[in-house]
Amino acid sequence: MPSLSERADQLDAADPLAAKRAEFDLDPEMSYLDGNSLGAPPKGVAARLAEVIGHQWARRLIRSWDEGWWTAPERVGDRVAPLVGAAPGQVVVGDSTSVNLFKALVAACRIADGRDEVLVDAETFPTDGYIADGAARLTGHRVRRVPVAALGEAVSERTAVVLVNHVDYRTGALRELPLLTAAAHERGALVLADLCHSVGALPIELDALGVDFAVGCTYKFLNGGPGSPAFLYVPSKWQEEFDQPLAGWVGHRDPFAMEPGYRGAAGVRKGMAGTPDILSMLALDAALDVWDGVRIGQVREKGLALGEFAFACVDELAPGVEVLTPRGPARGNQVSLAFDGAREVTRALADRAVLGDFRPPDVLRLGLAPLYVRYTDVLRAVRELRSCRT
Amino acid sequence: MPSLSERADQLDAADPLAAKRAEFDLDPEMSYLDGNSLGAPPKGVAARLAEVIGHQWARRLIRSWDEGWWTAPERVGDRVAPLVGAAPGQVVVGDSTSVNLFKALVAACRIADGRDEVLVDAETFPTDGYIADGAARLTGHRVRRVPVAALGEAVSERTAVVLVNHVDYRTGALRELPLLTAAAHERGALVLADLCHSVGALPIELDALGVDFAVGCTYKFLNGGPGSPAFLYVPSKWQEEFDQPLAGWVGHRDPFAMEPGYRGAAGVRKGMAGTPDILSMLALDAALDVWDGVRIGQVREKGLALGEFAFACVDELAPGVEVLTPRGPARGNQVSLAFDGAREVTRALADRAVLGDFRPPDVLRLGLAPLYVRYTDVLRAVRELRSCRT
Repeated sequence: MPSLSERADQLDAADPLAAKRAEFDLDPEMSYLDGNSLGAPPKGVAARLAEVIGHQWARRLIRSWDEGWWTAPERVGDRVAPLVGAAPGQVVVGDSTSVNLFKALVAACRIADGRDEVLVDAETFPTDGYIADGAARLTGHRVRRVPVAALGEAVSERTAVVLVNHVDYRTGALRELPLLTAAAHERGALVLADLCHSVGALPIELDALGVDFAVGCTYKFLNGGPGSPAFLYVPSKWQEEFDQPLAGWVGHRDPFAMEPGYRGAAGVRKGMAGTPDILSMLALDAALDVWDGVRIGQVREKGLALGEFAFACVDELAPGVEVLTPRGPARGNQVSLAFDGAREVTRALADRAVLGDFRPPDVLRLGLAPLYVRYTDVLRAVRELRSCRT
Repeated sequence: MPSLSERADQLDAADPLAAKRAEFDLDPEMSYLDGNSLGAPPKGVAARLAEVIGHQWARRLIRSWDEGWWTAPERVGDRVAPLVGAAPGQVVVGDSTSVNLFKALVAACRIADGRDEVLVDAETFPTDGYIADGAARLTGHRVRRVPVAALGEAVSERTAVVLVNHVDYRTGALRELPLLTAAAHERGALVLADLCHSVGALPIELDALGVDFAVGCTYKFLNGGPGSPAFLYVPSKWQEEFDQPLAGWVGHRDPFAMEPGYRGAAGVRKGMAGTPDILSMLALDAALDVWDGVRIGQVREKGLALGEFAFACVDELAPGVEVLTPRGPARGNQVSLAFDGAREVTRALADRAVLGDFRPPDVLRLGLAPLYVRYTDVLRAVRELRSCRT
């Protein structure tokens, strides 16, 4: 039986995605296991921003708005679309996940007229619950938090929309989006999926599943940069009825007519509010180049294999550590480990060039971004974890 | 009497801000008169973003959130604060103007409990009106559009908040913010000022006037870059009561505790929604360096003088052109000229390296950003305008 070290070397040598790491600006000795929080920078981003600033902004000046900036939110959205299983014209990039959640929640409540309840996954990432509370307060709905296992069952004829995190941020557990969508639709409710922790990690089939709305961030597995603009998915079937509360001038049908009344643009553009942030948008555009020639199925295979290997390392080297992440395939690209002193160990690992992150109360998360994480990074992390704890 | 050309040269030679143009990345032969739409790039921005990407993101990775990113919205807000007459701790940067308008409008309606009307300047930039309609629909208020001259008179005991554009985007007319604020307060209403076209153009005294809320963009006279993040002013007097509808995790009192319920942060931080966009935020931070050592009074003087000179040029060289901008000091940093064929002339000027912009139905706007616009640029614009029209 090969040692863990031999296995790591063999797995890295046989990894069809191994060459991708060279497309990122990462120190060779850095084991970066926090791509589920902040993706690493693709090398093309710096050069693209230099061009955007030095040429588009400095030389073309205001003309650049007509030379690609104005349409960037939809153009970049169409590059995100294949990663979430969406046909073109249904994804727009801009604003934050929180702001897009608000738009989608209010729009969903308006479509599901006569229903008075918003169901939220009780283990949700906090902002989703806060934004749901804020939206429901304005629309007159009540928010009911339900443990995710009971979410499908909880849908009733009162339910306007079910808000679910596709992958749990704390444990990495993958939610049953197909079953949940079917359960919600069976009872006439809509589904809004938060894809922050799944986009770029695993295949997503929004169109095929008939998911009603989705949002997600682009700074984790899409590597768009810190706080890069989020995306909003509004499928064709709802674009006509989509009636969102942050109806700003950029989503107007004819924005430069400067009409006093709002008329929403055709298509997903109506999901936009104010002027889009172009530097960040085009940084994301450049970051998406690393997906060229990559099949998401490949990424998923490596993500699962990295996780398997992490489990093996923990079992052998750190037996007292609790693995919160499901060991089967119902998980995203992270391994969450619970143990006393996780906060301090996370800090000590950082001093040894192993970067994960801590989530309360006692969880160390190791993000396994398949485009740049090596099996040897995983082994090193668990070895250092063991050494920090003893 | 010196010729216009002699006067332009003399004025440029005597301009105490003339050296500032060298801090911008602008071609010497470019007459850039659209800084009221998109400010020109300060030279420091490209280098700063290269450092943010190549060091902070690529080397420090997730740790950069604790090394300045997390606090950037307030830190950069405190750099905007002196430009709007605000003491520290009352301005936060993030999201778009439209999104910040929504937060402030709903919060204002909640503070002015029992009042059911939002007054909007009828000549407002469109997004303000659209967002007011969208907010009022959710809060149950009605929106009343009133010509700006009648706005003070129109305030009644039903008025929750008056939304006013400090400078009219089309004509450049400066609104009487002191009088309007006094009139609103006298009748118990709040004032929300949109400073998009005044910040960086003229002295603003939000604290001294007692303005209740303000928003503004940073991509015009603050040169933050295309779609750079906007700002929100929440004065100390309202921070406790400020109850905004996009209460996301970043504005939480203890965001990393990941609590299920929202508790707003102390201070203006509560005005934040989702994860702030760091690349754009730090581009703005770098752009603000051009204000070091500049007094806003100086900028105002040159802005008015540029306008005076533009009026003289139009009167002498293009007598058939209507000047929409007030000729007295009640104006911002633009000169708006109305004439048949303005759309085509705007395009023809661009081909001659004179960049202004067009607003329907027949208005050419010349933006006069005092940090980089030369008197010779103004003269050249009017000369080229005359030559295009004949």
